[in-house]
Amino acid sequence: MILSAKDIASLSKPYRTQLINAISGPKPIHVVGTISAEGKTNAAIFSSIIHLGADPPLLGMVSRPDSVDRHTLRNIRSTGFYTLNMVGFDWYKKAHQTSARYPDDVSEFELVDLGMTFQGVFPAPFVVEADIKMGMKLLNEWPVPQNGTSFLIGQIEWLIIQEDIICEDGWPDLHAANVAGCVGLDGYFKIPEIIRLPYAKP
Amino acid sequence: MILSAKDIASLSKPYRTQLINAISGPKPIHVVGTISAEGKTNAAIFSSIIHLGADPPLLGMVSRPDSVDRHTLRNIRSTGFYTLNMVGFDWYKKAHQTSARYPDDVSEFELVDLGMTFQGVFPAPFVVEADIKMGMKLLNEWPVPQNGTSFLIGQIEWLIIQEDIICEDGWPDLHAANVAGCVGLDGYFKIPEIIRLPYAKP
Repeated sequence: MILSAKDIASLSKPYRTQLINAISGPKPIHVVGTISAEGKTNAAIFSSIIHLGADPPLLGMVSRPDSVDRHTLRNIRSTGFYTLNMVGFDWYKKAHQTSARYPDDVSEFELVDLGMTFQGVFPAPFVVEADIKMGMKLLNEWPVPQNGTSFLIGQIEWLIIQEDIICEDGWPDLHAANVAGCVGLDGYFKIPEIIRLPYAKP
Repeated sequence: MILSAKDIASLSKPYRTQLINAISGPKPIHVVGTISAEGKTNAAIFSSIIHLGADPPLLGMVSRPDSVDRHTLRNIRSTGFYTLNMVGFDWYKKAHQTSARYPDDVSEFELVDLGMTFQGVFPAPFVVEADIKMGMKLLNEWPVPQNGTSFLIGQIEWLIIQEDIICEDGWPDLHAANVAGCVGLDGYFKIPEIIRLPYAKP
């Protein structure tokens, strides 16, 4: 099937949303933990985290200002900090449930029964269940002019990781860590065994 | 294990590169097809594609200016167009091989034996083997001030997709399409069966 830009624009909105949200390929999933200026905690699932660099360690994240993650964006703007908690296949259903439109005055940690923990004075909550947790400091926020989403650049301030999943050369085995991935808005999978290839030479 | 920003900065460079490149979670993999101003074709593997929006259909991509993908970035800047070809598990080794530092005057399509095809007058080559191919138009290029990488925003102009992998509601089954995912710089996996969850309600 060959779709032009015009064909894509004329698809029904729900059909286009399902198709285009999945068409970038398999995605990572994190629960983003934040705290409001009033001290209320928030947890929300994001599938829009991307590697930007290792030195300094930078990750990008896309946030829709008008969506369920609006509490997250407001809190990140207010405090300048957030956590990324990589979702495990043994708790992805709880993570998915954080995408429900809960009112502002209740914490998703309690509502979906996820454990909350802190690292020193770092001003955002981590998810106990996550084997890979990162404390992030916001460096830049760039509005995407075409659709009003925000691209956030953050630096890793804390990395809390289960030590036995890290190989000798530093590579973390996300299969051994029982990590989940996603496809589109609602598809989840368990990362299967991973094959590592040698560095490619001409 | 708990690593602070200072601990991460003091890791050896190869160790940090392996760790941080994988720490965003499972990633999509595409071969990016471009053509130079002189008409030479280029193919390069990228694991840094991210969904930015469905209407208009936008994808982001990260490019390191000083790396093997420099031919790709130069060509995108020069023509304003590129293709994304989602890597299948039956040809991911060929895709990986495009990351070798080949000289500028030879096309990776030939060198790694990938089929090349065009869609009308669209000025970038597609990979025959890919069941999901996208023709992209560059809209923005943003330099990341912290490390000199570029974040590119592109709009889908063409979507060429195997029809039988699309479900009734528009969701493409990337397991049925035998798509590959990756972890870090060198880890590959086949997308296993995907479980779809209903829309989350409070």
